Amino acid sequence: MKRTSFTDDACPVARSVEAVGDWWSLLIVRDAFIGKKRFGEFQTSLGVAKNILTVRLKKLVDDGVLEQVPASDGSAFKEYALTEKGRGLLPVIAALGQWGGAGSEFRLVDRKKGKAVRLEFRSADGHRLAPDDVKLVHGAAV
Amino acid sequence: MKRTSFTDDACPVARSVEAVGDWWSLLIVRDAFIGKKRFGEFQTSLGVAKNILTVRLKKLVDDGVLEQVPASDGSAFKEYALTEKGRGLLPVIAALGQWGGAGSEFRLVDRKKGKAVRLEFRSADGHRLAPDDVKLVHGAAV
Repeated sequence: MKRTSFTDDACPVARSVEAVGDWWSLLIVRDAFIGKKRFGEFQTSLGVAKNILTVRLKKLVDDGVLEQVPASDGSAFKEYALTEKGRGLLPVIAALGQWGGAGSEFRLVDRKKGKAVRLEFRSADGHRLAPDDVKLVHGAAV
Repeated sequence: MKRTSFTDDACPVARSVEAVGDWWSLLIVRDAFIGKKRFGEFQTSLGVAKNILTVRLKKLVDDGVLEQVPASDGSAFKEYALTEKGRGLLPVIAALGQWGGAGSEFRLVDRKKGKAVRLEFRSADGHRLAPDDVKLVHGAAV
């Protein structure tokens, strides 16, 4: 399907959409966050055709979200790892997970303490805000 | 393109991806957050073909993200408004915006005070965590 490209869009939301390439590719990113590394692991997890997965992985590598690294066990398999840019997608995955609601098979924890973590809106002085108290407005940051 | 459906997936990230329907549809949602309401406004903003926009808007209405409401000025135009479910997507839009980085033409503000708002990871006791301090793990919430 032909569509407008948002690569040069002034809006970072639009650029992010373009950079991830496909909505669905976020599920590969989610799997990478929970520790999946190999083509076969992604394929088993997502149940998609190999040719489609190949294209999506290539796009994520081309866009700098994933990188190919030597297998951690020294075997000939290539592994995929999140880059720093890719790791920056955790809030997007977390926000989607929280929106998807109950029944999650995933959860966010503090890497050091293992305690539950939430994604929240906070004002500059650290006050917690409900989503309905937050407004998206047009105009550069002041 | 044929693809796997994630509607019944146990993962809320997958269900969210399915519910929004298309990555690109988030740009319609972003526009709705900044106050755009009419077909023509979305079309001007996004620069997409009318038939594509029609399909995406219908999908968002069918999925309960947007609803059609009478025009606020009493005219014959139909307007689209975010439902409660749709308003819940603000953290997703915010996370994408923060990932997209600098040069944003949008910003998040406190609805009452107009002050800048950030989306942040916080532990249960309110401690702020950097994304690299947070881990996505498999397993139901404890």
